[in-house]
Amino acid sequence: MYHFKNDYSEGAHPAILQQLILTNNTQQPGYGEDEYSLAAKNILREKTGNPDADIYFVTGGTQTNLLVISALLQLHEAVISAQSGHIFVHETGAIEALGHRVITAETENGKLHVAGIEKVLQAYSLRPHMVKPKMVYISNATEIGTIYSKKELQELSAYCKSHKLWLFMDGARLGHALTAVNNDLDLADIARLTDVFYIGGTKNGALLGEAIVFNNPGIAPDFDYVLKQKGALLAKGRVLGIQFLELFKNDLYFDLARHANQMAKKITEAVNALGYTFLTGSTTNQIFPILPKTLIKKLAEKYLFFEWKEIDEQHTALRLIMSWATEEKIVDEFIADLKKG
Amino acid sequence: MYHFKNDYSEGAHPAILQQLILTNNTQQPGYGEDEYSLAAKNILREKTGNPDADIYFVTGGTQTNLLVISALLQLHEAVISAQSGHIFVHETGAIEALGHRVITAETENGKLHVAGIEKVLQAYSLRPHMVKPKMVYISNATEIGTIYSKKELQELSAYCKSHKLWLFMDGARLGHALTAVNNDLDLADIARLTDVFYIGGTKNGALLGEAIVFNNPGIAPDFDYVLKQKGALLAKGRVLGIQFLELFKNDLYFDLARHANQMAKKITEAVNALGYTFLTGSTTNQIFPILPKTLIKKLAEKYLFFEWKEIDEQHTALRLIMSWATEEKIVDEFIADLKKG
Amino acid sequence: MYHFKNDYSEGAHPAILQQLILTNNTQQPGYGEDEYSLAAKNILREKTGNPDADIYFVTGGTQTNLLVISALLQLHEAVISAQSGHIFVHETGAIEALGHRVITAETENGKLHVAGIEKVLQAYSLRPHMVKPKMVYISNATEIGTIYSKKELQELSAYCKSHKLWLFMDGARLGHALTAVNNDLDLADIARLTDVFYIGGTKNGALLGEAIVFNNPGIAPDFDYVLKQKGALLAKGRVLGIQFLELFKNDLYFDLARHANQMAKKITEAVNALGYTFLTGSTTNQIFPILPKTLIKKLAEKYLFFEWKEIDEQHTALRLIMSWATEEKIVDEFIADLKKG
Amino acid sequence: MYHFKNDYSEGAHPAILQQLILTNNTQQPGYGEDEYSLAAKNILREKTGNPDADIYFVTGGTQTNLLVISALLQLHEAVISAQSGHIFVHETGAIEALGHRVITAETENGKLHVAGIEKVLQAYSLRPHMVKPKMVYISNATEIGTIYSKKELQELSAYCKSHKLWLFMDGARLGHALTAVNNDLDLADIARLTDVFYIGGTKNGALLGEAIVFNNPGIAPDFDYVLKQKGALLAKGRVLGIQFLELFKNDLYFDLARHANQMAKKITEAVNALGYTFLTGSTTNQIFPILPKTLIKKLAEKYLFFEWKEIDEQHTALRLIMSWATEEKIVDEFIADLKKG
Repeated sequence: MYHFKNDYSEGAHPAILQQLILTNNTQQPGYGEDEYSLAAKNILREKTGNPDADIYFVTGGTQTNLLVISALLQLHEAVISAQSGHIFVHETGAIEALGHRVITAETENGKLHVAGIEKVLQAYSLRPHMVKPKMVYISNATEIGTIYSKKELQELSAYCKSHKLWLFMDGARLGHALTAVNNDLDLADIARLTDVFYIGGTKNGALLGEAIVFNNPGIAPDFDYVLKQKGALLAKGRVLGIQFLELFKNDLYFDLARHANQMAKKITEAVNALGYTFLTGSTTNQIFPILPKTLIKKLAEKYLFFEWKEIDEQHTALRLIMSWATEEKIVDEFIADLKKG
Repeated sequence: MYHFKNDYSEGAHPAILQQLILTNNTQQPGYGEDEYSLAAKNILREKTGNPDADIYFVTGGTQTNLLVISALLQLHEAVISAQSGHIFVHETGAIEALGHRVITAETENGKLHVAGIEKVLQAYSLRPHMVKPKMVYISNATEIGTIYSKKELQELSAYCKSHKLWLFMDGARLGHALTAVNNDLDLADIARLTDVFYIGGTKNGALLGEAIVFNNPGIAPDFDYVLKQKGALLAKGRVLGIQFLELFKNDLYFDLARHANQMAKKITEAVNALGYTFLTGSTTNQIFPILPKTLIKKLAEKYLFFEWKEIDEQHTALRLIMSWATEEKIVDEFIADLKKG
Repeated sequence: MYHFKNDYSEGAHPAILQQLILTNNTQQPGYGEDEYSLAAKNILREKTGNPDADIYFVTGGTQTNLLVISALLQLHEAVISAQSGHIFVHETGAIEALGHRVITAETENGKLHVAGIEKVLQAYSLRPHMVKPKMVYISNATEIGTIYSKKELQELSAYCKSHKLWLFMDGARLGHALTAVNNDLDLADIARLTDVFYIGGTKNGALLGEAIVFNNPGIAPDFDYVLKQKGALLAKGRVLGIQFLELFKNDLYFDLARHANQMAKKITEAVNALGYTFLTGSTTNQIFPILPKTLIKKLAEKYLFFEWKEIDEQHTALRLIMSWATEEKIVDEFIADLKKG
Repeated sequence: MYHFKNDYSEGAHPAILQQLILTNNTQQPGYGEDEYSLAAKNILREKTGNPDADIYFVTGGTQTNLLVISALLQLHEAVISAQSGHIFVHETGAIEALGHRVITAETENGKLHVAGIEKVLQAYSLRPHMVKPKMVYISNATEIGTIYSKKELQELSAYCKSHKLWLFMDGARLGHALTAVNNDLDLADIARLTDVFYIGGTKNGALLGEAIVFNNPGIAPDFDYVLKQKGALLAKGRVLGIQFLELFKNDLYFDLARHANQMAKKITEAVNALGYTFLTGSTTNQIFPILPKTLIKKLAEKYLFFEWKEIDEQHTALRLIMSWATEEKIVDEFIADLKKG
């Protein structure tokens, strides 16, 4: 059986494990003050074109989201998310547990847009009987595999700035977004257009780890306290620093994401060639082909995947996720099995 | 100008003020241990038919809701509410501020039903990535003036019991519900069918005050700590006890609510007679007539009310609220003005 | 039996009840927008010499403390209090429940001083492993009846300003402090020297009510949201506004406090004349005479009071609290009983 | 320069890294459902003699403490800790940030005892004006290197049971405690005598990781939700499972701790032989020798350590921490340097 269920089924890219071994015996200060963390932050500052960025490494996406949102919002302030946003659907109310409502807004292709945010602001205007929307949370790539264009992000950014809303990008799969064939954004654009974002490592080759980037260092001057208070400050911060250093010193991060996208593209093309359609227009590493149930039953004998949504009596949309570790050989086999029908 | 905007525009019923004066000089223990509070609780225990009920007096509805919900839920547990529920719409995220998601469910005539709750349970089943729905919050009367029938409440109650969900009734306007012409519930029914409910005083003749009734005294054995910790325990608890004693010792509470409903009914009948319709089927003290904008403009010269919702280019639904203090003379005048068109 | 246990045993001063009756039938907007609240705020702005002060009326002391502290502190920030401070001893962890540590500092005569605060800052300097002290909380009068001199408050104020600490004064018994014979502060001094303080009504003649005064209106621009979210915004805000208007329009507030202090002074002088001593140097309405246990036993047959602290096998320190409602006749009787021994 | 500052200066024991490499390519379910985590939990269940224990792996000590305490306490409940307890001193108010007061109790040799806890219960008895102490938190080894004897733990356990207090042991350095020369406890004793404890991996050879053991599985049936909600559930849970499996399958965990203790013992004996004394009676891997400042100055040229506390004008107590990675060669060199004086 081969997993297409997620992009965190394997360990880490071998180059990362190799670095853990090579650096293992050096004595380093704790709590993120080690030389590897400092070097990795400098590389990210360069790549984002922002020498003043405040950068922190943490262990997972839910942790990242709750840290950033809690640090930036007062208790009476709320965050606006897509209905499909990870903070709304899959984080066990982590944001509410810290005191903040998550307000959902309309989306198009899984993406927030100005009109949807505007409606929220209007609906939440009866001060002080309603919470105050104060942040917009977007994911790139989105939960359905789509990506924001530069124009879309510019519009959101301008709207947020003019309405005093923080713009926070969840980049659990940022590598996959930035290496998608139709992408026109880079790290520097994102740093310029958002207040804070994160670069996901767990789903793109690291053992664990996400990099939080505050583009404006003044908005969370006490974030180190927040990290520690929420249990997110590792004694051996080196574990995260070493991994991000390895991922970014030669752009391994983007190579890995590109591979995952490429594997998804191969399947996408095969699905299209066979005349099947997709639930969403994904160009990244997770795709949602709509297949006959009879075919799905056969595929399920060899492959693991989520049956995402029943479409009609004969068809279901699957979710297939490719990763840095997905073997092309197996993808080819899967395509062959698809063709057999 | 005369207010039909809400049911808390005036002070208190004169009999209550009279009691405050008569009892003013007695020295009493603080923090709800005064003789008036104790007596009032005993009367409520009798009326609910539950000698073991745990009863607490607090100052307002939002406070009540946050105290009860926080006392009964763990941080990873959520409350299910109508989309129009007060905790979802008008309490500034008070429930989220204490850590709990408010999940909205479908309603019919402003009321929750089993099918809607069932859908929520299904949508929130991916343990542990989603919060655990653990309470159903209903309002009687609802925010649009409708009321729960005994059958409806029995169904909700049975479902909640079998699914280990607390059932909590917000009774900000419970008096109006229980004295509505189509009501078939009484306090004892409510005590039997819910886990906890509250009896609203502020909107029915008190200066301030709500009575929280835990029908099962074992579910919140430490509620006294919660009260104090959240700043809800009055040093002069007598202020609340005296009022509830006066409201319930001779059923003044129900008389006042009945008056408010009666005033609303008079206007309802006039509106119907004139051929206008209503947005909701209210039988309590808040009604939502749909009137021509030209007529509304004239009425607005003499009366204050909320324009609730635009229906079409010519018509708007108003919200008119009657109270224990609404003068029949003015209601008659209003009806006369309606008829003038 | 006569209560000397606290200063909230009776209802309200008759003039206040009278005003509640006189204003009862006027229709007013809710949530503190009534004309009485607005007028009362204007009077307080005048008396504090600060036309820009932001003022809010709430129902009790614990509520006030938790609202103010929560509004001004981030989650990783802490408040410094006397070991005897109300927020540390008698508020059921209300401050911690909102996320903040209460750090205790050394006191002298129940009062905080710069040296004590300095020690706390030193002890809490290991960033980010320790919370960040960010507020100093003092009570005037203190929990043991002493008061701050202008010089003491100036020193605290200067230290707090230079160390970016908010200075918050709990004025549950502010009237008693400002009318003590050895007091040299007035409301304008307090407004100038603190960032925020509150004026206690509950313990000085009101049915309930405290007035929060933000001297610098910019430090909590969203306090209205906080009030509502924490369940502290009364629908009938008039109930609080009417009382503060009556208490301050002709300085009734200070007359009532002066009476309480005067009653305490009478007993103090009698105790001194009899050769007994005191646990604390109180000049306000609560005093702590050290009396023989045999005498206490006799007094306890006619009077209720707290036995505060055993001093030795023969002696105990009592706590006696006088109030606006304490009858001079009874005080004289008590003194006579004291003299009988 | 050689670090004696802490026991998390290096990476992980080589055997652990080796396992990460060997298992790297297997596809595993996420969120702790991988085969390594399941196997590691089974081994720990065996070693604790409790087949029903609920076990969870998380990334750090502060995270562990906040998860466990938040899961077991209601908001009005407090935890009792030593004044030197990690949750009181070095976790940035993590426990208060979740709503709970940390109450400090007297200690002897850094250890809590029944008499100290009893005093706290007496001081916090004025219900409902004070929080309710509901948990006792102890560390073994303590922050000053001492350990609990079986008799001491039995007394605490019996007292906690009879007073309905949870007993929680912080085992950040549990390995060092259980391999100390004067230890008479084992994992099964601890499982029997506490309600919950944790086994620290970060400070004893793991890259990161702590194992939480609920001895009574019924006390936190929803802990999986808590983990996820607080951002503590790793997508690649295997990273933790693999490490604990390696640490416990052949008792490597205890071997590593024994080595650290042994290194500390060597230095301790040398210090004693030279006639110097210690601040605390540590038998574990952190020791606090009191040395002449002149000697300290010389040592500081070659070694890094904390100057813990000035004793007098000539002497200071150092803190020296040994670990699984401490090289005996360097320890011998350090001893030689000590002898040189």
